[in-house]
Amino acid sequence: VLPANEQMHVLESGSSAVHTVESLRVKLDRGAPLRVKLGVDPTAPDMHLGHAVPLRKLRQFQDLGHQVVLIIGDYTALIGDPSGRSATRPALTIEQIDENAQTYMDQAFHILDADKTELVRNSDWLGKLDFAGVLKYASMFTVARTLERDDFANRLAEKKPIALHELLYPVMQAYDSVVVRADVEIGGTDQLFNLLAGRELMGKLGMEPQVCLTLPLLEGTDGIQKMSKSYGNYIGLTDESADMFGKVMSIPDELIIKYFRLCTALPVDDIDSIEAGLADGSAHPNAAKRRLAREIVALYHGPAEAEAAESAFDRVFKAHEAPEDMPEFAINPGEDTVHLPAIMKAAGLADSSGQARRLIDQGGVRLDGEVIGRGEYDRPASDVIGSVLQAGRRRFARIVAKA
Amino acid sequence: VLPANEQMHVLESGSSAVHTVESLRVKLDRGAPLRVKLGVDPTAPDMHLGHAVPLRKLRQFQDLGHQVVLIIGDYTALIGDPSGRSATRPALTIEQIDENAQTYMDQAFHILDADKTELVRNSDWLGKLDFAGVLKYASMFTVARTLERDDFANRLAEKKPIALHELLYPVMQAYDSVVVRADVEIGGTDQLFNLLAGRELMGKLGMEPQVCLTLPLLEGTDGIQKMSKSYGNYIGLTDESADMFGKVMSIPDELIIKYFRLCTALPVDDIDSIEAGLADGSAHPNAAKRRLAREIVALYHGPAEAEAAESAFDRVFKAHEAPEDMPEFAINPGEDTVHLPAIMKAAGLADSSGQARRLIDQGGVRLDGEVIGRGEYDRPASDVIGSVLQAGRRRFARIVAKA
Repeated sequence: VLPANEQMHVLESGSSAVHTVESLRVKLDRGAPLRVKLGVDPTAPDMHLGHAVPLRKLRQFQDLGHQVVLIIGDYTALIGDPSGRSATRPALTIEQIDENAQTYMDQAFHILDADKTELVRNSDWLGKLDFAGVLKYASMFTVARTLERDDFANRLAEKKPIALHELLYPVMQAYDSVVVRADVEIGGTDQLFNLLAGRELMGKLGMEPQVCLTLPLLEGTDGIQKMSKSYGNYIGLTDESADMFGKVMSIPDELIIKYFRLCTALPVDDIDSIEAGLADGSAHPNAAKRRLAREIVALYHGPAEAEAAESAFDRVFKAHEAPEDMPEFAINPGEDTVHLPAIMKAAGLADSSGQARRLIDQGGVRLDGEVIGRGEYDRPASDVIGSVLQAGRRRFARIVAKA
Repeated sequence: VLPANEQMHVLESGSSAVHTVESLRVKLDRGAPLRVKLGVDPTAPDMHLGHAVPLRKLRQFQDLGHQVVLIIGDYTALIGDPSGRSATRPALTIEQIDENAQTYMDQAFHILDADKTELVRNSDWLGKLDFAGVLKYASMFTVARTLERDDFANRLAEKKPIALHELLYPVMQAYDSVVVRADVEIGGTDQLFNLLAGRELMGKLGMEPQVCLTLPLLEGTDGIQKMSKSYGNYIGLTDESADMFGKVMSIPDELIIKYFRLCTALPVDDIDSIEAGLADGSAHPNAAKRRLAREIVALYHGPAEAEAAESAFDRVFKAHEAPEDMPEFAINPGEDTVHLPAIMKAAGLADSSGQARRLIDQGGVRLDGEVIGRGEYDRPASDVIGSVLQAGRRRFARIVAKA
């Protein structure tokens, strides 16, 4: 077991806040494995690096010898969101929850150590809680304090309704901590209130309160918005290695160290050195970013693929060459003219013809390296056959004649 | 079955508000018996006329053919008040609740018609409600609306804490209405918010909402404060008939009609006539008050005792005579002087020597009709033996020599 100070150094790396640092140190000093809680919704996300941030932190805990307790929050999913505002959202069935939980875990266990992970569902205890229990635990919180939570405070200020049952969700989450006897709970900074509720409830029930460790939101490749599928700035855990490598290379330099700390398994001391190197100018951001991309791809695809992705990247982006391998797309040589947006869509270079037209109009599409002009959607078939069509920086297709 | 309009006339008599008058009329118009709910705490009060006000209104409903549903709120009593503020208040045991409920019902059935009363306990359904149920019903209320309740609004304004579970009490009471399928719920004006919560929840669940009928607080004999044991201004249902008669006679004239409407079983038309008579001067307040006192005493002690109480009252208060029968109190004739406060306390004319001294000092004590002067606490025993000692207007004792 590492000394508490060394463990603290690892665990604080990349974290937003530890509440409190002193109580974490006391718990670590005892030398016994800590129980580290993470609550997850039983949705089935296509996970991206943002989702992986808390899992990576859990993995650090495991590598230090601690025990992870993953709580699938199936109870609320089972009853649906009963608030008037989203009455149309149906409750999930048990089968759907099982399936979602399975999908989530399949992805999560690429990061977590299964031997040090306890997997539980909060329906096991919340389903058994009676009204007296609800009243008992709710009585340990005040209305004023609960309404301080950002989400509630904002809605109150904007005079938007808060349904009464919503105030009970922090109580539920806090009760989860009591039941699993959490030593530490981790979550995003937006979860701080709920994490503290658990800490408070444990204290009121005479238990040693949990430590609350929060992690920052991870910005996406645009460096501005939170990573999210809906912003199109995400790096999926199942993205192909070349794509993943390229996306990491596209992040702004300011995010390099944050990504190192939150998205890689590199030893914290190594990250500290890279950070120092960037700060004193002895290291170059581009080299650091290549290392970062390699580390991330290696985590999800293995070192060999990481190396291959780096070589491919070099060919495409450094030598401005087309990649060796690319999909071929066959068109009918009998046609007089071909409509490029239709080909782009069919060849997978764009999600829709509309998107293809926008890409062309923005100067983002090349034919054999030459930019296609705005509105030049149609070309003679003979011009196109045998050429390489390139959309953006990383999507290529070779147009061939149908046999 | 009386026409709806005539029933309305009876039911609105003495009431503060009916929410809504129109929906009550619609329900009455159907001609079927209504289910009229009253929720009571399983405390064991020594009931006074104030406690009897809602029971009398229920009795009116019963006399019109409707069904009463009395809900003993044993569930919260069973779990105690879990809020921090009154942590020392222990939860009642099932035995205590049973005993209290029995005491309450023994008194209540002097007023209610047992054949038209359904007696239930809300632990029967609240004890079975799970967390999902709590969330479901709580989701039908908003935080903002709930905090509008006077009690909550005041505490928020004064920055006094409200525990989270307290917000669930209106939900519980509303759910009671759903379970018993109340057509009408009655309660004090201070209960309006909770009554309306029941109405709202029923509507949201697609049931016909209950009508909320509120009753004013009854002022005590001082005519100022709400009737309460702690203000010493109450008329107990088990007070002796002479005492009850005298207390009713002591209320201010302005309350005569209110007492008629809330505390007697006199037909509403008769009360309307008395009110009109007082208004146009054709009736005298004192005569009306005597009628009131007779009606009230007759309700709790029968007409014969009411008549006797009135005669006794006439003797004492009109003829300024001592009553025929009074307790005797024997003192030792060997004493030189006697200390009047001690005798008063021992003879039951005062609760303590201190109170006896204050009564004397205020000129409220007479010996054979003569006021005893301030500070004149000691008298020769010979002066006192054979005399009538009178404290206030209605307490007498004859002092005799010990045999």
